[in-house]
Amino acid sequence: MANSKYEYVRNFERDEILLPNTWIVVRIDGRGFHKFSNHYAFTKPNDIRALDLMNKAAAHVVTTIPEIVLGYGVSDEYSFVFHRSTNLFERRAAKLVSTVVSTFTAAYVALWPTCFTTTGDGENEGNVEGEGKAKGGLDINMLPTFDGRAVLYPSWENLRDYLSWRQVDCHINNLYNTTFWALVNQGGMSHTEAEEFLKGTVSADKNEILWSRFGVNYNNEAEMFRKGSVVFREYALESPAVDPTVHKDEKDDGETGASGTGEQPLSKTQMEKMRKTRQKAKVVVRHLDIIRDEFWVQRPWIRSGKPGRLVDEGSQI
Amino acid sequence: MANSKYEYVRNFERDEILLPNTWIVVRIDGRGFHKFSNHYAFTKPNDIRALDLMNKAAAHVVTTIPEIVLGYGVSDEYSFVFHRSTNLFERRAAKLVSTVVSTFTAAYVALWPTCFTTTGDGENEGNVEGEGKAKGGLDINMLPTFDGRAVLYPSWENLRDYLSWRQVDCHINNLYNTTFWALVNQGGMSHTEAEEFLKGTVSADKNEILWSRFGVNYNNEAEMFRKGSVVFREYALESPAVDPTVHKDEKDDGETGASGTGEQPLSKTQMEKMRKTRQKAKVVVRHLDIIRDEFWVQRPWIRSGKPGRLVDEGSQI
Amino acid sequence: MANSKYEYVRNFERDEILLPNTWIVVRIDGRGFHKFSNHYAFTKPNDIRALDLMNKAAAHVVTTIPEIVLGYGVSDEYSFVFHRSTNLFERRAAKLVSTVVSTFTAAYVALWPTCFTTTGDGENEGNVEGEGKAKGGLDINMLPTFDGRAVLYPSWENLRDYLSWRQVDCHINNLYNTTFWALVNQGGMSHTEAEEFLKGTVSADKNEILWSRFGVNYNNEAEMFRKGSVVFREYALESPAVDPTVHKDEKDDGETGASGTGEQPLSKTQMEKMRKTRQKAKVVVRHLDIIRDEFWVQRPWIRSGKPGRLVDEGSQI
Amino acid sequence: MANSKYEYVRNFERDEILLPNTWIVVRIDGRGFHKFSNHYAFTKPNDIRALDLMNKAAAHVVTTIPEIVLGYGVSDEYSFVFHRSTNLFERRAAKLVSTVVSTFTAAYVALWPTCFTTTGDGENEGNVEGEGKAKGGLDINMLPTFDGRAVLYPSWENLRDYLSWRQVDCHINNLYNTTFWALVNQGGMSHTEAEEFLKGTVSADKNEILWSRFGVNYNNEAEMFRKGSVVFREYALESPAVDPTVHKDEKDDGETGASGTGEQPLSKTQMEKMRKTRQKAKVVVRHLDIIRDEFWVQRPWIRSGKPGRLVDEGSQI
Repeated sequence: MANSKYEYVRNFERDEILLPNTWIVVRIDGRGFHKFSNHYAFTKPNDIRALDLMNKAAAHVVTTIPEIVLGYGVSDEYSFVFHRSTNLFERRAAKLVSTVVSTFTAAYVALWPTCFTTTGDGENEGNVEGEGKAKGGLDINMLPTFDGRAVLYPSWENLRDYLSWRQVDCHINNLYNTTFWALVNQGGMSHTEAEEFLKGTVSADKNEILWSRFGVNYNNEAEMFRKGSVVFREYALESPAVDPTVHKDEKDDGETGASGTGEQPLSKTQMEKMRKTRQKAKVVVRHLDIIRDEFWVQRPWIRSGKPGRLVDEGSQI
Repeated sequence: MANSKYEYVRNFERDEILLPNTWIVVRIDGRGFHKFSNHYAFTKPNDIRALDLMNKAAAHVVTTIPEIVLGYGVSDEYSFVFHRSTNLFERRAAKLVSTVVSTFTAAYVALWPTCFTTTGDGENEGNVEGEGKAKGGLDINMLPTFDGRAVLYPSWENLRDYLSWRQVDCHINNLYNTTFWALVNQGGMSHTEAEEFLKGTVSADKNEILWSRFGVNYNNEAEMFRKGSVVFREYALESPAVDPTVHKDEKDDGETGASGTGEQPLSKTQMEKMRKTRQKAKVVVRHLDIIRDEFWVQRPWIRSGKPGRLVDEGSQI
Repeated sequence: MANSKYEYVRNFERDEILLPNTWIVVRIDGRGFHKFSNHYAFTKPNDIRALDLMNKAAAHVVTTIPEIVLGYGVSDEYSFVFHRSTNLFERRAAKLVSTVVSTFTAAYVALWPTCFTTTGDGENEGNVEGEGKAKGGLDINMLPTFDGRAVLYPSWENLRDYLSWRQVDCHINNLYNTTFWALVNQGGMSHTEAEEFLKGTVSADKNEILWSRFGVNYNNEAEMFRKGSVVFREYALESPAVDPTVHKDEKDDGETGASGTGEQPLSKTQMEKMRKTRQKAKVVVRHLDIIRDEFWVQRPWIRSGKPGRLVDEGSQI
Repeated sequence: MANSKYEYVRNFERDEILLPNTWIVVRIDGRGFHKFSNHYAFTKPNDIRALDLMNKAAAHVVTTIPEIVLGYGVSDEYSFVFHRSTNLFERRAAKLVSTVVSTFTAAYVALWPTCFTTTGDGENEGNVEGEGKAKGGLDINMLPTFDGRAVLYPSWENLRDYLSWRQVDCHINNLYNTTFWALVNQGGMSHTEAEEFLKGTVSADKNEILWSRFGVNYNNEAEMFRKGSVVFREYALESPAVDPTVHKDEKDDGETGASGTGEQPLSKTQMEKMRKTRQKAKVVVRHLDIIRDEFWVQRPWIRSGKPGRLVDEGSQI
């Protein structure tokens, strides 16, 4: 039986091909995580188990998709950056987004039991033995899901600003949440009272409230809470002082690159070789400032997309 | 700290809004499932556990996303049909695709242990206790992932042809695979020999090979293998003889609909009410012919997108 | 000298391919025509010369692009409808839009002298002999230009509603403008006074104002002003009474069509033949009601996209 | 009469918004210009009147759309570059393309009589008095039309490479055409013979043929033929030696810009002021090498998008 009679329907398929030589950010967000976090009794404002799980899933994504040069996560969202030179899936948007979302989701569900033990789910204890409960403690009626989207950034500055935007957002939200939950959990306010109380306050006010009322120095809060999490391949850090050409190189690498210009594009063999080298590097999760230049100057391989020097065993944090 | 300095980066975000009044099909495909099925020692040509798991995950998707009127699955792919009138996520392509992919992936991973028991994985037995092994038998280094895409079909005929295309494909592939694996498993051929042997054969040839060599009547193979799986909400079947107006109604419902025309668009309250009615209906998995009209004439609610009459308890298969 | 070094830049080109089996409307709008119409002293509220020129340019577009089945124009805008089955320029959006816009603009400029005589431009008389003046009376510093866009309509009902929308708009605007200019030109009001005066009035009020103040029966205004202009190929009108199958045929032709379904797609030879037949038909400009069914039932060739019966010479209006 | 019943059709409109901070090139191409140039008896291989007309129309486009920083034309095509920071028409693709195409077409038709005199059209003389002839010598049945498209280039290097690609193409085609028509017009070959004769030849071969057979030194051919035409606003040239910071500034201006980053975005007032300054500058047509850096280093205002220093009267070519 030939299928030709119906095959015309393929003509209705469209592929959105993302503009070459632009940075691709795939950002995923937890769907309905307010309800989800209540269902599984997440600690507020920050649940370390939940953040660890996000980071493990993100590290899994970066590890299995070497074309990703960086991940940055806060709360229930994660941004993954593909190098501007990537040609993965011929830069088809739907493929890139759905692959990241699916890989993240699979890891999040599969690794759930490594972060959340079945016992200790608190208020949901009653459900634990329930019929609708999948092995490993996740309730089939309350599975974690994520949506995702791709955004393009044409210049290095635009990409840096995107990541700065997310990290500033992390800071603003975390300061607010920390103060809000202190007022609720320690201050005995209702949610509405705390919300009213904080209306119109600026950062300095919240720092002051935390300190004067609860003896909390916000700057001593965990880095993971205040700065979010950065996931990347670790190589030996570069020192700008030692290598004065870094800045120039950065410029060239960043603004041109394989599918870019000037520079000779890499052959398929070279690309495959680089891909393998990247796969060997260790993927790490850190909680660092990514707004200032220091992070980027020390790690030129993120901008260049080329592997750095391997870290001497034990010499690196 | 204000975030306004960086917030301009939001201007780079683009939303693809899918054309109103068109049928939206989100089709997902297993990524690298050849390797995946080998890793978990799937039975060839069809592994009932694997197909059951696909169907369970698909039923979960249809259940949790009431805007989906039908799912059709074969092998490691599944197509989900959103009614042409849907306005879910304002018809944003990335949202629709990523939500379906994520929901499917989450269910597939969470439900894995209900279909695959840890023991009996055959050749992978050695890994079972391994460090990289997540609870429930899935290897963290070999997680199931799916990519997805959205395709629009402007007319009911186009949609029907799309689904016919997938079911014909199911038939063609399954007949080939059944014959191929009979030649390999029972006929003692190597993969290459079987491939060579089947080159140029038509359907009749393969039926004959199965029958004369292995005594297999292809028509007695399981319906699930030959026809794939249809997932939908079950209501009382309609009989065209009893209700001669069905055909006309179908036309109207199908070609216009809420966001379409003529017909008064439904209010938000009506939409929400219909959504809830749909959520009450039982989602079933069947293995039926969806190429001929019969399936559709009996189930006008799929085309109309409106709930049908509830099935009398026990009166329906 | 090989050009291969730079040729990679072609990879940045994107083609938006319009969804098959949908009606394509390319709508063009005069750019800055308020200023333009003042510069050339158009008569308000309607300048017959200007409308004639729009219609001539539109007829030229329909004549030279046989894939267009209908044009509808009002004021300085024109909508051109491509049949849902068209594959012109492989349905590339930019090609379709720019070709229509360029063809319309070229005709408008080239035909200007046939509608506007050099003398009689009224207030711009002084410029007529001016240095910046191109031959034919158009001022090079005030050339007519049009922008354009493509919109897709998936069903016949959607397309009909689009055209009805434009014709209702024509009516609303023309009734307003007729009353406004009567108040200004005959009633001696200033623009602001007339605007204030009409604030909050409904159609009946405006009809009443025209009649009681100026003795104008709006229904006696020119059809071209009240209904806009329809441009199409003229064949012998069909009578629904004589041909009771028209309605059914319409359904089939409209909802499926060449790139659609069921129906066998036309061969390239057939397409080319039909194209030529269409080119022979006379393109006419009419001022008819296109909201009610009558117009469409009598002219089934517009929906079907197939040539109708040739008109007996002299027997048709 | 309210229009609300039909107004839902506006929901089918889509706007493609071009990615911010990327260079926008709108390239237009003559439609069917092979036939067009035969109809009006263009001189081969280059018709100075026709090229002058292209350049006049392009200068008109650049003059009336100040957001365009450069035009480059060869044969019947022209590329117009919008600065990466432009927000004209909110960067809507259809608006940008159709406006450029319409403005170019209007100017080409309106200025035709300034380049082509009615008499002297050679073989078409017979048509001159014809009925279908519009004033100014253009035949209404053979109007010039152009299609257009927008392409995005994310980096300055990509844009430079795009323009280099077009200029190399100009050179390759012109050398070929010059040799081809010498063989035909002076060498007495048929078109087919000349084509065959040139098959497989490289640039050096064609230069040699021109010189040895026809005494033509290709390098003495007109610059307009060999290099195409560049259209831009003229300011005082910059000398890199005098202003060593130019290069750095260029970098900053080019890669960031108003909608870009770092740099403070310009206020609406500043933008409007700059727009007016640009409108005052003289738009010139030149035939220069735009592949090497010199052209760009001397004219930093093209990359920066900011007005340069006004030229002293009489001191500049």
